[in-house]
Amino acid sequence: MLDKRALRLARGANYASLATVMPDGSMQVHVMWVDADDDHILINTETHRPKFRNMMANPRATVMIPERGNPWHFAEVRGEVVGTVTGAEARSHIDALAHKYMGVDEYPNPITSERVIVRIAPERVFVYPPG
Amino acid sequence: MLDKRALRLARGANYASLATVMPDGSMQVHVMWVDADDDHILINTETHRPKFRNMMANPRATVMIPERGNPWHFAEVRGEVVGTVTGAEARSHIDALAHKYMGVDEYPNPITSERVIVRIAPERVFVYPPG
Repeated sequence: MLDKRALRLARGANYASLATVMPDGSMQVHVMWVDADDDHILINTETHRPKFRNMMANPRATVMIPERGNPWHFAEVRGEVVGTVTGAEARSHIDALAHKYMGVDEYPNPITSERVIVRIAPERVFVYPPG
Repeated sequence: MLDKRALRLARGANYASLATVMPDGSMQVHVMWVDADDDHILINTETHRPKFRNMMANPRATVMIPERGNPWHFAEVRGEVVGTVTGAEARSHIDALAHKYMGVDEYPNPITSERVIVRIAPERVFVYPPG
């Protein structure tokens, strides 16, 4: 369900907008690093963050990924959180993202609580421009 | 309620992510041009677009504006749609946006239905990095 262009945008060093639903029904939209496996958008965050708590309480999430420097080319993935991974795999994944975005081998920022990979299954994928 | 940094991001030639609520409760997040008056975020769209229909049915909207080329500096404005303007003012406003983003005097794209300015009153504003 992730078409080739959405996969390319999620795997490139592009900055995503992640939308989650706050407890009051308003939408949080933040800039995030992003990744994808063959079937899911992957977000790496920490377990104490409101965006993570939002997704645990309400599994809806939308990830919109504009091409860096060319924002009218973007993929919008509306989906549902279907799994989370913590521990060594999540730590290793944030290091891989640090490599992709910063060219370093290890994520350099302090970790406040615990890293977690959030797996988002796409329900609807739009890619602009179409075709 | 729009602090100085949020105003600067909304008035600069930065590309916003606009999140609206679809009829099924999922979130649409699209790339948009953006502007602000002293008290509101302004979005200019067309009246036939799903994002406009979403905001007429559910006035919640979140506008997240990353600085162009520096996406970790961003403003996130969660707000409520409090007004719309069509007609000559909306046409003139899309021309002003075309000037800001494209350096041209007149919006060059076809207009399918009718341009409309959507005025979003901020309820909560976050600016990153803080301080």
